Amino acid sequence: MPKQAPNVSFRDTVRCSDPEDIFRLAESSGIFYPEETAVARELAEERLIRGTSSGYDFLFAETNGAVIGYTCFGPIPFTQGRFDLYWIAVQKDLQGTGVGRHLLELTELRIQAMKGLRIYVDTSSRKPYAPTHRFYHSCGYHQEAVLMDFYAPGDDKIIYMKALSCR
Amino acid sequence: MPKQAPNVSFRDTVRCSDPEDIFRLAESSGIFYPEETAVARELAEERLIRGTSSGYDFLFAETNGAVIGYTCFGPIPFTQGRFDLYWIAVQKDLQGTGVGRHLLELTELRIQAMKGLRIYVDTSSRKPYAPTHRFYHSCGYHQEAVLMDFYAPGDDKIIYMKALSCR
Repeated sequence: MPKQAPNVSFRDTVRCSDPEDIFRLAESSGIFYPEETAVARELAEERLIRGTSSGYDFLFAETNGAVIGYTCFGPIPFTQGRFDLYWIAVQKDLQGTGVGRHLLELTELRIQAMKGLRIYVDTSSRKPYAPTHRFYHSCGYHQEAVLMDFYAPGDDKIIYMKALSCR
Repeated sequence: MPKQAPNVSFRDTVRCSDPEDIFRLAESSGIFYPEETAVARELAEERLIRGTSSGYDFLFAETNGAVIGYTCFGPIPFTQGRFDLYWIAVQKDLQGTGVGRHLLELTELRIQAMKGLRIYVDTSSRKPYAPTHRFYHSCGYHQEAVLMDFYAPGDDKIIYMKALSCR
């Protein structure tokens, strides 16, 4: 039986409990290195301390008040309307239910509202990221560049991009 | 007559006067946007506040105690020995004297001492950067990727890379 999409609500404010929830989420995904999950938490802390001047915006997906997924994004300095999607994560047992897609679509709308024209995402070429690559492709992102052996020998950086259409 | 290389000394410690000197240098080059020169200064301020945990290292070239050029570089998080050269600038009237090349060579040695294996540099494809591109090529860097219209329409991001040889 296909997984059932939960009843989800979305929130763009950042709460004091978010850094820990983000850490838990990123850790549960089993895909990120410990240093990466630590940084995921730090970005939310940075946002709590410095507000929007941190350059990090967030969108959270919740069911019954519990965070089940989130995105972290922001404008790329010195560019005209280019944004980075720094982070997207969905609770492991809810992956494949459409929560991630919904989260990404709403994030794109927010970026458009912030005059964003393009979204860039960096990913690793490692095998555990294969579902992530399929996810980006199915959401309209394409490979813009590959930096061979960028992270480590045999671990390339793939840069995905989506040009947001005018509405 | 070719420009005369001044008598240069190098320094890797960061002083309180450096952020302003960096700002002046970057501004005098005439190549950077005002937001960029502001960020160049901020990176040095960040280093003064947070020390090496800022992730930014510096190398300064001086003549008679005055800063005439500098580099800013640091390890790229989540990579094995990959470094970013965030900034390199040489006082305008001393460009072409070999100061920049010397600065870059010493920076590469420092990166190697920090177990760095590769150096990445981002540049713009805009015309004022043509001498910068020639400079990187002549220093052993090659184009690793191009992100079309990354900064703005018609302004691509060119990513240069140099693999440091084992010594």
